[in-house]
Amino acid sequence: MNTNRYDTISFLSDYGIRDEFVGIVKCVITDIAPHAKVIDLTHEIPPFDVRAGSLALARCISYVPSGIVLAVVDPGVGTARRGVAVSVGGGRGVLIGPDNGLLSMGTALAGGADAAVVLNNPEYQLGAPGATFAGRDIFAPAAAHLCNGVPFAELGDAVDPNLLMPGVIPLSRTEADGIVAEITWVDRYGNCQLNVGPDDVSSLGMQLSVLLTTSTGERSTRAASIVSTFADINGGIGLVIDSFGMLAICIDRGSAAEELSIGVGDAVTLSALTETPSVTTSVQLRSNPKGN
Amino acid sequence: MNTNRYDTISFLSDYGIRDEFVGIVKCVITDIAPHAKVIDLTHEIPPFDVRAGSLALARCISYVPSGIVLAVVDPGVGTARRGVAVSVGGGRGVLIGPDNGLLSMGTALAGGADAAVVLNNPEYQLGAPGATFAGRDIFAPAAAHLCNGVPFAELGDAVDPNLLMPGVIPLSRTEADGIVAEITWVDRYGNCQLNVGPDDVSSLGMQLSVLLTTSTGERSTRAASIVSTFADINGGIGLVIDSFGMLAICIDRGSAAEELSIGVGDAVTLSALTETPSVTTSVQLRSNPKGN
Amino acid sequence: MNTNRYDTISFLSDYGIRDEFVGIVKCVITDIAPHAKVIDLTHEIPPFDVRAGSLALARCISYVPSGIVLAVVDPGVGTARRGVAVSVGGGRGVLIGPDNGLLSMGTALAGGADAAVVLNNPEYQLGAPGATFAGRDIFAPAAAHLCNGVPFAELGDAVDPNLLMPGVIPLSRTEADGIVAEITWVDRYGNCQLNVGPDDVSSLGMQLSVLLTTSTGERSTRAASIVSTFADINGGIGLVIDSFGMLAICIDRGSAAEELSIGVGDAVTLSALTETPSVTTSVQLRSNPKGN
Repeated sequence: MNTNRYDTISFLSDYGIRDEFVGIVKCVITDIAPHAKVIDLTHEIPPFDVRAGSLALARCISYVPSGIVLAVVDPGVGTARRGVAVSVGGGRGVLIGPDNGLLSMGTALAGGADAAVVLNNPEYQLGAPGATFAGRDIFAPAAAHLCNGVPFAELGDAVDPNLLMPGVIPLSRTEADGIVAEITWVDRYGNCQLNVGPDDVSSLGMQLSVLLTTSTGERSTRAASIVSTFADINGGIGLVIDSFGMLAICIDRGSAAEELSIGVGDAVTLSALTETPSVTTSVQLRSNPKGN
Repeated sequence: MNTNRYDTISFLSDYGIRDEFVGIVKCVITDIAPHAKVIDLTHEIPPFDVRAGSLALARCISYVPSGIVLAVVDPGVGTARRGVAVSVGGGRGVLIGPDNGLLSMGTALAGGADAAVVLNNPEYQLGAPGATFAGRDIFAPAAAHLCNGVPFAELGDAVDPNLLMPGVIPLSRTEADGIVAEITWVDRYGNCQLNVGPDDVSSLGMQLSVLLTTSTGERSTRAASIVSTFADINGGIGLVIDSFGMLAICIDRGSAAEELSIGVGDAVTLSALTETPSVTTSVQLRSNPKGN
Repeated sequence: MNTNRYDTISFLSDYGIRDEFVGIVKCVITDIAPHAKVIDLTHEIPPFDVRAGSLALARCISYVPSGIVLAVVDPGVGTARRGVAVSVGGGRGVLIGPDNGLLSMGTALAGGADAAVVLNNPEYQLGAPGATFAGRDIFAPAAAHLCNGVPFAELGDAVDPNLLMPGVIPLSRTEADGIVAEITWVDRYGNCQLNVGPDDVSSLGMQLSVLLTTSTGERSTRAASIVSTFADINGGIGLVIDSFGMLAICIDRGSAAEELSIGVGDAVTLSALTETPSVTTSVQLRSNPKGN
């Protein structure tokens, strides 16, 4: 009996919403598996930015319902880079996309891969007038056929999941002058997520010194408290424990990225606050050098 | 018997579509209430702009199907501001969001609140690593559980709906030189909706004098006729009776906001057209000072 | 017996996603036909750009599931221009929208019109406070009622489908100095689709000379190979056989539109590559004048 196996396809890409790419992928899915519900995670990953895509997928993955994850950021489309499906959680979920590191963090956070196949069975692909839209021709059909109950192993040749392309995980490091973190994400509000959580900096206290290097190369040091809400920032910048449990450089009802001229990939050095920092901009700071 | 109570969640926010916020909210809803259909009203309310959100919700509300309205523009997330659910139409609909005025116009246009609860029952919330994403952790679960038939009163403590935060409704006023209106919305096409309808200005005739103050502080007076379609404008600017029955300053196949350098919040004074107005820009006007 | 006739409404417009237009259309559809699934093809057609909308619809149409296509780019809304429904494929599909050429290419690619009606039966329209939102008041209700099984002919008076407004199809032409094509679409990545496929230029070989005129009026000639993937471009520009089988001017992992200052509507002359072309910009070219 060929029962439907999955009902949900959670879809992330760099297709943008300006063109009809996302719409066509959904048409293909609906045509093959009308019962499947597609949830758009986001399609505004910057073009070609595999790392930004893998980080967004990592932020989503613990909320994604059982079912398929379809992720496409695929600058190498049409080349020797493989399309893959990766089974996680004993088949509770399957991640589908290019084997370029995009899926790696999501797979790891979902408990690791049980099995993987290369999507090379043409029976579950669309014929196409050109090779540049694997989302439409290879990935969406694979996702939809899985929803219809096609067995995972039918999609193509098994591959060792340990040999899938790893992702580049940005790690913080401890140096003489503090913990060097990196801005991994700037959200729509201008909040700048770091790759450290409160536990990673607990030795430094709750009031920190934050050394920033702006995009114009200017370095400045600011004081910031670790707080739980934007309203607690109380002027200046704060290190808010964000909704993913990471620290984010924030301004209350304003854009930290814009005010401070900082962005994704910038280094941020966090250290214990020992004296009143020198401030080079007009942002009003809550100066509380004595701690607590 | 615990039957499903609602099938539809109409969702408005300032989350934008660049990040995965909207996607994660939909994941949470699907996980709890797979049968619920989410309708995106819009997610591009300007960040933190509670008033713009409440006006957009007011424009939508009479078209929203029976069910849940989930609205999130929430600069005070995580603070003492309350999350609430508001029942309207004898339970035909429930509005869910922060108690900061966002829901007030929508509630009033839906006939007023029957009952309200504060969303403080942790049983219907997600545990979270941070307090800044109430849409994911508090509002979406509440919406989804209502869809599953959880009784309204279970979501938290009852509050007097008359004590919910009121919204700021922009009212026009009559002054010596005319009716002073305000631009409440600039849509994608550049049409500038006013907070007056044709009945509000019927004493002034169908050809009006429109006094604008541009964003650079320049004031100019233009003639404009009240018309039913963009094509009727026939050169220059028109006061189109828009799809919500309000007057909007428009240019046919062009952006009035851009051409006239006007925007949300700008004052516009409407008066009877008695003489050919002086015009300060190159926009071609249909001069018809005799009326009719 | 009035069975549901259609389950899917594929929706394309120039409404944008900034405002609540798309959301309200979906509310209207859900209210009338809760079972109907709406697939967003795209809503970011440039405002009023009927030709761009008709080209996007043409790119989508062969992937659209059986059912309704709702397409709205409608600068003449509220005027004498008619709203129509067009039946294709023996009723397998129905295209709904303004009769301004928007539907013409999609209709032709779907096999041509079987029948057409003007949407003038008020029984299947919403009353409205203004005449400027036909998507909400006329087109969406028509689409939803068809989904509910209302017969096509009930929507309004039959019209001869041969008398529907034709679209303007951009055709390439052969001139003394080569094949003169046109850029018909610039996608999010900056790829510039031409209105010629590989067969149209097969007489010129696989390495072509591409004469561009930039938006600043500067003309330059470049060499480009016809290739199947972006990675095959190997420096400089390439003519990639895109996912719709057309040639597109592309740069690997970059924006051809931006680098070359070209855009929709620009003419591009393709000819056989006979000598090393003079290049006026710093883009690195793969010079391969001997062919193969």
